Amino acid sequence: MIPTSDDSPTLADVRSARVRIADLVRRTPVERSAVLSGKVGADVHLKLECWQPTRSFKVRGATNFVTSLSAAQLAPGLVTASAGNHGLAVALAARAAGTSLTVFLPSSAPRVKRERIRQLGARIEDGFATYDDAETGAMAFAEAQHAVFVHAFADPRVIAGQATVALEVLEDVPDVRSIIVPVGGGGLISGIGRVMKAVAPAVRVIGVQSTMTRAMHAAFAAGRVVDVPVPPTLADGLAGRTDDATFQRARSVVDEMVLVEESDIAEAIRTLFAHDVVTAEGSGAVGVAALLSGRVRPTGTAVVVVTGGNIDATVLAPLLAASTAS
Amino acid sequence: MIPTSDDSPTLADVRSARVRIADLVRRTPVERSAVLSGKVGADVHLKLECWQPTRSFKVRGATNFVTSLSAAQLAPGLVTASAGNHGLAVALAARAAGTSLTVFLPSSAPRVKRERIRQLGARIEDGFATYDDAETGAMAFAEAQHAVFVHAFADPRVIAGQATVALEVLEDVPDVRSIIVPVGGGGLISGIGRVMKAVAPAVRVIGVQSTMTRAMHAAFAAGRVVDVPVPPTLADGLAGRTDDATFQRARSVVDEMVLVEESDIAEAIRTLFAHDVVTAEGSGAVGVAALLSGRVRPTGTAVVVVTGGNIDATVLAPLLAASTAS
Repeated sequence: MIPTSDDSPTLADVRSARVRIADLVRRTPVERSAVLSGKVGADVHLKLECWQPTRSFKVRGATNFVTSLSAAQLAPGLVTASAGNHGLAVALAARAAGTSLTVFLPSSAPRVKRERIRQLGARIEDGFATYDDAETGAMAFAEAQHAVFVHAFADPRVIAGQATVALEVLEDVPDVRSIIVPVGGGGLISGIGRVMKAVAPAVRVIGVQSTMTRAMHAAFAAGRVVDVPVPPTLADGLAGRTDDATFQRARSVVDEMVLVEESDIAEAIRTLFAHDVVTAEGSGAVGVAALLSGRVRPTGTAVVVVTGGNIDATVLAPLLAASTAS
Repeated sequence: MIPTSDDSPTLADVRSARVRIADLVRRTPVERSAVLSGKVGADVHLKLECWQPTRSFKVRGATNFVTSLSAAQLAPGLVTASAGNHGLAVALAARAAGTSLTVFLPSSAPRVKRERIRQLGARIEDGFATYDDAETGAMAFAEAQHAVFVHAFADPRVIAGQATVALEVLEDVPDVRSIIVPVGGGGLISGIGRVMKAVAPAVRVIGVQSTMTRAMHAAFAAGRVVDVPVPPTLADGLAGRTDDATFQRARSVVDEMVLVEESDIAEAIRTLFAHDVVTAEGSGAVGVAALLSGRVRPTGTAVVVVTGGNIDATVLAPLLAASTAS
């Protein structure tokens, strides 16, 4: 096992993050899923991060980052790049901190994420072909403006914020044996994994990506970060690259990385809607997809993080219509 | 103003209900709606009862009722009649109390409500043409079985449980000037109204029904309970009669009853989904429908209770598809 980077957050960092973010971030419910528990033959619980104020877990890391900045750092306004949900989360945190924000978005960002970013008073720079292009543009802009760039995953303060999910899961499901986590850049699973290895090392940490958003999975397979294409996917929120520091962090705490197909994600969205009465976006449903498709087979109690719920009507309506036709 | 019935719950009853139900019932979030606030020109907040464990506020009253029963009363099992959400709520409370339950349902009850009632281990008696027929059947069955019948609205313990919504709203939105409440039988608005008149009499209490589920509205207009037909409606959860005691309770605390059209409800469901990222059922969306259609025009801060979120894919998919076509 490769040692974690020196600047990875400690358990103490995660605990202070929890206090610092409490005003903007909800302690979301954990619910047992009857349908998934029946399918798997063990208790499966859903951690409903799709019910955060911004409808994704990203508000945890963004808030922890922004509340750590000085007045001088906040003054010129902030800059970020995001597949959508991180931008929305930083927009909420920036408004609460009384500063402005520019969000660089790829064209894959859903309408609902754009609209809610604007509602929170942030400015959008649009039209980038990929998340990676948006990130490159945002970093150049931040440097030119002498503004702080809020990275979506590769920052210890962001990771410490995301890791607070794990503290809540351990309190609410003390017998958890597996935690199943959607993976984009890898900030959430790095944070959750770090807490689990420190506090509950028997918990298996399982990351899930779509075959269309497999940057971290490919890095695990190759032993290093590699370039992978990102075709259109239901899991738009997971689209983009990871980086070497985050890959090393993830590798030291993740037990398994799996891939699901787009059809698995569609079925997971339908199942969550029809049986658990939870509206999830594609990225938020990949963990459930891994269970339903049999790609992950937990032996004891499992918790799946349903990371987000920002899905456009144009995407959900045909998925639900397909289910009602069958 | 007509005096309330002698057995209407007191503020002390509501406060003890809040303590008694705390284990099964969530303190749901209140969120400002940007789109509704813009439409109305005043702050509009959503009380998200659609995120209760059973996806409706009904769990409050049902839990307060069931936890008030003695072991001897619980022993033979419980009986209820419901448009769906109350049955689901009693099913959760009965399971927690370790007793059985039979739920009488009208044929209008959505698939998702039936499935979740069964998941909780309750038995369903089905095929009644209307809620009223189901209630008649359930009461006869309860008498024959010497079992306790858990009425959906006409019971002071149920009303006291529903009224806990008002305590939370007053704490979370202290400047509230109007509260807009979906009305079926009238239990929720009787409870909320009673708290408001006791603690915050400046708050205007506004009830909303669909033109297809207008039993309480018709009683207000006639000054007495009258028979009204209940054609199929998006607001299936509001379908059914009220009774004289509940009408008198409601009349003493409700400032205004309004009706919305089915098309208003459809638009409200679409707006909540697309702009607030909240999936509501038709009954849960009638308050929003009243604001969007201009049938209610609040002058100060308003809170709308989004009472439920149990909507079938077969209902939501065509509604969302219609919005994306426009």
